Amino acid sequence: MIGAREIELAGRLADVAGGVIRPFFRASFDHEAKADSTPVTEADRAAEAAIRAILDVECPTDAIVGEEYGEKTGTSGRTWVIDPIDGTISFMAGRPIFGTLIALLEDGWPVLGLIDQCVNRERWIGVTGQGTTLNGKPVSTRACRELAAASLATSGPQYFSQHDGDHFMALAAQTAHKRMLFGGDCYNYALLASGHIDIVVESGLKLHDFAALVPVVEGAGGMMCDWNGEMLHAGSEGHVIALGDPARMEDVVEALACNH
Amino acid sequence: MIGAREIELAGRLADVAGGVIRPFFRASFDHEAKADSTPVTEADRAAEAAIRAILDVECPTDAIVGEEYGEKTGTSGRTWVIDPIDGTISFMAGRPIFGTLIALLEDGWPVLGLIDQCVNRERWIGVTGQGTTLNGKPVSTRACRELAAASLATSGPQYFSQHDGDHFMALAAQTAHKRMLFGGDCYNYALLASGHIDIVVESGLKLHDFAALVPVVEGAGGMMCDWNGEMLHAGSEGHVIALGDPARMEDVVEALACNH
Repeated sequence: MIGAREIELAGRLADVAGGVIRPFFRASFDHEAKADSTPVTEADRAAEAAIRAILDVECPTDAIVGEEYGEKTGTSGRTWVIDPIDGTISFMAGRPIFGTLIALLEDGWPVLGLIDQCVNRERWIGVTGQGTTLNGKPVSTRACRELAAASLATSGPQYFSQHDGDHFMALAAQTAHKRMLFGGDCYNYALLASGHIDIVVESGLKLHDFAALVPVVEGAGGMMCDWNGEMLHAGSEGHVIALGDPARMEDVVEALACNH
Repeated sequence: MIGAREIELAGRLADVAGGVIRPFFRASFDHEAKADSTPVTEADRAAEAAIRAILDVECPTDAIVGEEYGEKTGTSGRTWVIDPIDGTISFMAGRPIFGTLIALLEDGWPVLGLIDQCVNRERWIGVTGQGTTLNGKPVSTRACRELAAASLATSGPQYFSQHDGDHFMALAAQTAHKRMLFGGDCYNYALLASGHIDIVVESGLKLHDFAALVPVVEGAGGMMCDWNGEMLHAGSEGHVIALGDPARMEDVVEALACNH
């Protein structure tokens, strides 16, 4: 069960991360290349280290999975999943649409998720069985009567394999094509939870990319699933659909299955 | 000559536009379809009407070109070019990376440009012969030693014709491909002026889309030109290059000319 203590702790972790990250935003800094060439910033590492230090003290038996410092095993059955800066490309370009992601998993399933935009001071929190909030105020997804009226977002065409990209474009052709949104990373899911975007489709997401998103989206009335409409799990190979209106799930899965 | 009066007036126009636009941001609202299906918001129209009302009183002999209400002829040789919400798709999705564009042209050439992000209260102002500022503080573009290290931005692959898109991708393949940025509209040029993005390439821009960008980018040490490296003009058919480091101009023009 997630209670006030866990929600307070998650918020405190995000506060600390934001304090570490903000001074680096739009500052000149060096970035080093990881093996996969993703840009990594000092801010990312420093923020994750700060979050881990707090968790080590406050929840010593919980496991931790982080993008920068790997996995710490635990014995409590709970796992904190952390991505201090999701959307590093936006961060490095000075766009305030990156986010800090913090999730708490029980028995492998995310029951608490937090998306924090520390520059604009926007914080979405979702908890299983409770409504999602933005800065403490309830938010909800919007209805979407048909694909043709839906706004579709994804982080970028360059993240799809040729095969996945073809399927994505088959879906895109059935949505409000001119309103398609690129970039945004986790921020797209936050805006979907707040009722401003209808569909987000991505591939290649890892657990630390999507764990925090699930409680935020579902607590706002939306749903998340894989490209077959099945529940997400750690082995979904990152094929993720988020829907503001769950009634559009079959339409999206069907459109994605086409390959013209 | 642009003096303190014009700069103050441009700032006041942006203040009024921001005051009109902010209440609509992330509010529920209807949008009507224009002939070309671009989403238009009430905010866009109301902001342009407010700007025009001020200009009619303060500069009755100046011409005005606006996206929503067309052209008003003048006799002074000066033209105000207005786009209250550049980046309507970002605006409608709740992303604070759209902008209000205000330009003043003398004899057809932009000598004052303003990019305003009214939610985050960021205002870039460029004036011919003066340095560009962000909220009153000087900004400058950054050096870029080679294309391979350059971050490239564009509003979206869907805005290119097939032909232009092929040439864009030929350039993209020579830049830091994984750091390519989509979305952003005018905000990309503002971030380029502040030294966070190296190159922006677009096609299909109209005068009201790019007039305000030129003084902002060039006053920060960058340059703008068309896809042939020639000076922009109203008949450039919207093929626009913005460079943080003018030394990369020939590389970009050459890469764009390739068509694999």
